[in-house]
Amino acid sequence: MAYPAPVESLVRAFEALPGVGRVSAERLTFHILRDAASGGALRDALARALTDARRCRECGNVCEGETCGICLDEARDPTTIAVVEEPRHVEALERAGVFAGRYHVLMGALNPADGTEERHLAVAALIRRVQGGAICEVILATDPDKEGEATALLVLEALESAGVEDLVVTRLARGLPAGSAIEYLHKGVLEDALEDRRPIRRRGR
Amino acid sequence: MAYPAPVESLVRAFEALPGVGRVSAERLTFHILRDAASGGALRDALARALTDARRCRECGNVCEGETCGICLDEARDPTTIAVVEEPRHVEALERAGVFAGRYHVLMGALNPADGTEERHLAVAALIRRVQGGAICEVILATDPDKEGEATALLVLEALESAGVEDLVVTRLARGLPAGSAIEYLHKGVLEDALEDRRPIRRRGR
Repeated sequence: MAYPAPVESLVRAFEALPGVGRVSAERLTFHILRDAASGGALRDALARALTDARRCRECGNVCEGETCGICLDEARDPTTIAVVEEPRHVEALERAGVFAGRYHVLMGALNPADGTEERHLAVAALIRRVQGGAICEVILATDPDKEGEATALLVLEALESAGVEDLVVTRLARGLPAGSAIEYLHKGVLEDALEDRRPIRRRGR
Repeated sequence: MAYPAPVESLVRAFEALPGVGRVSAERLTFHILRDAASGGALRDALARALTDARRCRECGNVCEGETCGICLDEARDPTTIAVVEEPRHVEALERAGVFAGRYHVLMGALNPADGTEERHLAVAALIRRVQGGAICEVILATDPDKEGEATALLVLEALESAGVEDLVVTRLARGLPAGSAIEYLHKGVLEDALEDRRPIRRRGR
């Protein structure tokens, strides 16, 4: 038994979003049918975001005007770009205050499960920025998980085929998280830490 | 750091829905910012559902016209009403083909966690139906979980204070699920099955 058309369409529109299954989609739909105010608020917020939400024309981050504050900040190094998945990652790095370059926000990571493909990610815009010159290093700052690694590889391949000479591409280091205790870390972390171990004293010194 | 206003409003509108936390709300918002088609589809489906989705004026189920097929079906017993939480529960009972009465769809269950309160549920409409006469039995067919039990209690209290004499109110039986194996059932099921055990031979017969 399918629901009446207006109900079924709403269930399907919710179901098309990442991480929302049929049961959650039905739950969200019935919530809106019994509490029209939340549905109206969502409809209006969607309409507003679809017309008004802007992305910085330089870095692709969410933005008030045409260009974001970070891209306009001349004190920041324009030759180093950190490529991140989402606006929240810019926020995290800014909060830490450890990076003085610029960003490039892909707005997602490759994820077959939620339908995020290359065409959804701002890779072409990154290539254009790099080809525009004046960029020395691209730091791949995607998450250290399966989706983030696949995305980093995708960006690396795109950068390599862009034919920009002298461009350095780096990836954030993997290893022991500062302040942690080795006994509680899982296999993958220890594996990375061993594999990327650094010499601190060389033989014969 | 908050996001630009049109982005932040959309995050908050998603976050106001049941079962959607801040992180999921951000993920849904960024999905829509990189794939405007899914956002447009949701906006249109919401607008349509908010204007066109109808609930049966008798039983409150989702419905094409003013009254649903079950309420219009004169072959079904109009004196017995099964009170269910959601349209999917009507579907389940209809698929089982075990009930020949009518339904009343509350459109949810009491749930402080997702903000579902008495005012969201079609309890007053049930009381009006019962006070309209011709109803002999109300079967409380809400889920056998915490929310369903609280909802059944709420409906029972409302029915009791409605002052309808001779109305029988019943609750679906709890016990061993048919076809199961006792060794795999959890404590609550076995507790119910023992507590509601039925005599099958009386002493001295």
